[in-house]
Amino acid sequence: MEKLEHIGIAVKSLKNAHSVFETLLGREHYKIEEVASEGVRTSFFEIGGVKIEFLEATRDDSPIAKFIEKKGEGVHHLAFAVSDIRSSMEDYKKKGFEVINDVPKKGADNKMICFLHPKTTGGVLIELCQDL
Amino acid sequence: MEKLEHIGIAVKSLKNAHSVFETLLGREHYKIEEVASEGVRTSFFEIGGVKIEFLEATRDDSPIAKFIEKKGEGVHHLAFAVSDIRSSMEDYKKKGFEVINDVPKKGADNKMICFLHPKTTGGVLIELCQDL
Repeated sequence: MEKLEHIGIAVKSLKNAHSVFETLLGREHYKIEEVASEGVRTSFFEIGGVKIEFLEATRDDSPIAKFIEKKGEGVHHLAFAVSDIRSSMEDYKKKGFEVINDVPKKGADNKMICFLHPKTTGGVLIELCQDL
Repeated sequence: MEKLEHIGIAVKSLKNAHSVFETLLGREHYKIEEVASEGVRTSFFEIGGVKIEFLEATRDDSPIAKFIEKKGEGVHHLAFAVSDIRSSMEDYKKKGFEVINDVPKKGADNKMICFLHPKTTGGVLIELCQDL
């Protein structure tokens, strides 16, 4: 892993999150993007080289809706940049981590992504991401 | 706010967290520090300029023990660097955020810290921190 690429935060409403975090961070979100396959609408802030991604469910069976139902709003995942996602996935599998999706999938922000199951990562959902 | 200073992760066992994250991040934690007043033992990793702080409760009434009981292990707070914590606290209070501690307190890693209540920050516990 090279660096923390972004922090993903599950929220009920992007609009409310923008109102709070624009005040808190003293800057505006710089883009909104929908990932229809995942049932989420995302928005991005940037501070000091780290991105903060807010995730709002667009349908009831979205993983984000389920997360909020179970845990409430809050940090959903930590995403780390890798240079070769397939090779990283193989490497982590060999080391005992469980990948949630066996094949990298298209995420927001022009990336290929893969999640590592929190039961093998100390309770923290970890995303590996590679720029397309 | 200037930058994300660290991500705080609540864990049941620093030892287990080290085993997982040393493999995951490909590096070792660089220090362990106890904050007796908060009932926590902390350890730190660094990746690409961002710190990851693991927090383990040292007593049953520690805020970390209570957090894990309620939500399970996972991301506990996001900490942002500020240059003048007292002035930031006043500013955020005026803007409608609720501070948990009215006076900055001594945190790990040689910092003065203050938490903003997650009910006013979209469900995410936010720490303001200033280098001592």
